[in-house]
Amino acid sequence: MTTLERFFDGDQSALARIISFVENREEGYQTVLSRVYPKSGKALRIGFTGPPGAGKSSLVNNISKVLASEGKRVAVIAVDPTSPFTGGALLGDRVRLTDMPIDGSIYIRSMATRGSTGGLAAATGNVAAVLDAFGYEYILIETVGVGQIELDIVDACDSVVVVLVPESGDAIQTLKAGLMEIADVFVVNKADRPGVDNIVMELNMTLDIRREKSDWEHPVVATEAINNKNTDKLIEKVKNHVEFSKTSGRFESHRKAQIRKKIYSILAFNVNGMIREKLAHLTDVDRAVSDIYQGKSDPYTVSQELLKLSDIDLSFS
Amino acid sequence: MTTLERFFDGDQSALARIISFVENREEGYQTVLSRVYPKSGKALRIGFTGPPGAGKSSLVNNISKVLASEGKRVAVIAVDPTSPFTGGALLGDRVRLTDMPIDGSIYIRSMATRGSTGGLAAATGNVAAVLDAFGYEYILIETVGVGQIELDIVDACDSVVVVLVPESGDAIQTLKAGLMEIADVFVVNKADRPGVDNIVMELNMTLDIRREKSDWEHPVVATEAINNKNTDKLIEKVKNHVEFSKTSGRFESHRKAQIRKKIYSILAFNVNGMIREKLAHLTDVDRAVSDIYQGKSDPYTVSQELLKLSDIDLSFS
Repeated sequence: MTTLERFFDGDQSALARIISFVENREEGYQTVLSRVYPKSGKALRIGFTGPPGAGKSSLVNNISKVLASEGKRVAVIAVDPTSPFTGGALLGDRVRLTDMPIDGSIYIRSMATRGSTGGLAAATGNVAAVLDAFGYEYILIETVGVGQIELDIVDACDSVVVVLVPESGDAIQTLKAGLMEIADVFVVNKADRPGVDNIVMELNMTLDIRREKSDWEHPVVATEAINNKNTDKLIEKVKNHVEFSKTSGRFESHRKAQIRKKIYSILAFNVNGMIREKLAHLTDVDRAVSDIYQGKSDPYTVSQELLKLSDIDLSFS
Repeated sequence: MTTLERFFDGDQSALARIISFVENREEGYQTVLSRVYPKSGKALRIGFTGPPGAGKSSLVNNISKVLASEGKRVAVIAVDPTSPFTGGALLGDRVRLTDMPIDGSIYIRSMATRGSTGGLAAATGNVAAVLDAFGYEYILIETVGVGQIELDIVDACDSVVVVLVPESGDAIQTLKAGLMEIADVFVVNKADRPGVDNIVMELNMTLDIRREKSDWEHPVVATEAINNKNTDKLIEKVKNHVEFSKTSGRFESHRKAQIRKKIYSILAFNVNGMIREKLAHLTDVDRAVSDIYQGKSDPYTVSQELLKLSDIDLSFS
């Protein structure tokens, strides 16, 4: 049996192999993905984002355990460089989630967040598709909501949870960082700290404008992830949003928009790869770089010249 | 006289026009840039990055005034969505820097940080090239150091200053976020707060490994931007780094590497634009999206089919 056959057969070690294969873009990964994609689409993708230290990991941890206790298969993808999952991996040690079930009902994967400019959002989507096709019913994607790539990642989810803490200014910072527009459910975590009422009120006031334009009543849930408080309530709100989204048609239109983006990004990725490969063999590049450095030419003129030289054939025939 | 002629003549309003033109990628902006680039290259680009709220803007503000008092022409580009510069602009009001000289010796520009996925780093580089060609001698680029795009922006600078505050865990967070590798000078701002000695010590210990591998003794400067304390010392360290960099040959090799990246990014951008345009006119895309949504196809197969259909001619002839 091939690894892919074992994967479709439910073999957990084949899953790990396929994920690495896809994440590292090994030779032939696109062929594997073209086999995997048609089997995906059943899982719900829930994105969690917010400033570093807001407690996203603890929250995701709690939620995954509740969903698992409901008999659901849950996968967690951590794309947050400040997450104990990913951060731990970067620092060379491992996540120890000693209270996690060992029956494979919860699968945790961290994505490398460096050296993958432009490809991180795509790689995260691919890993999610693999987990989806494998049979995970919930895919919880955790990312720190600051950069554009991170926003792209959660925007690809069916529901987006933005996690804040009751510190002054957070709501405004969130607004500025573009999180407000993409959030479906808001969480104020660490609700035992002072200032909770203020930020909940501030959020509700800001959200009133959005609520007027939408049939969805963006909820604000106050949680204490560390004490596992209000996890159920948050899950209920997320499920409500998915229901609302399906009924209103937004679910389908959003997924189709994501597919369209995906097609485009594959095209761009493949064409860029061809360009990079062609250019690597052109000795003229070194001379051109020196010319530009000395002010004798410019990168726009050079790129046009190189394109002529490279004679790229895009017909894929 | 054309706008470009007035620009080369030192006309400040032509500068503003050219910057907007380039930033918004208006029709013909690449031709303008190909004229501008050969005149650029003299300015020093100093990048400032670090977590939101570390006081980067105040620091950049102080530095620009000191450099201006030395008779230098200084431009500031703010790419930080949490910056009072950019954030202010996003919220619809204006920066009021009442203590700034009004003779045009300091120029401040904020970059839009949304709706420009993949293009923000390129756009920032282009605006820097325009300011450079116009005659600004220092270009101070401020960005929040979390996302990959933001790292790319400061990595394109000749010297990178990482700004931290004396809060526990910051040094480790910085390390994780990939800032450590790109920093040339470290600042611990808000040095009036408790914990300064600890973070300075922690940083120095972490830096010892890097210092051993390099001839550059990465300095750590404690500042109080709000009281304009140690601004001179920081400027001295940055100037030292530029000197070191020029002597060691790193300055030239780093700039040439940036030029190479620029050529590649122009090629990728132009080719991607062509693909996007071709695809927009293909009705087959809608049908393909529906097929994929229903699990009847996959985006990899579709993208290959579309590429065949699009028949893109890359010869630029």
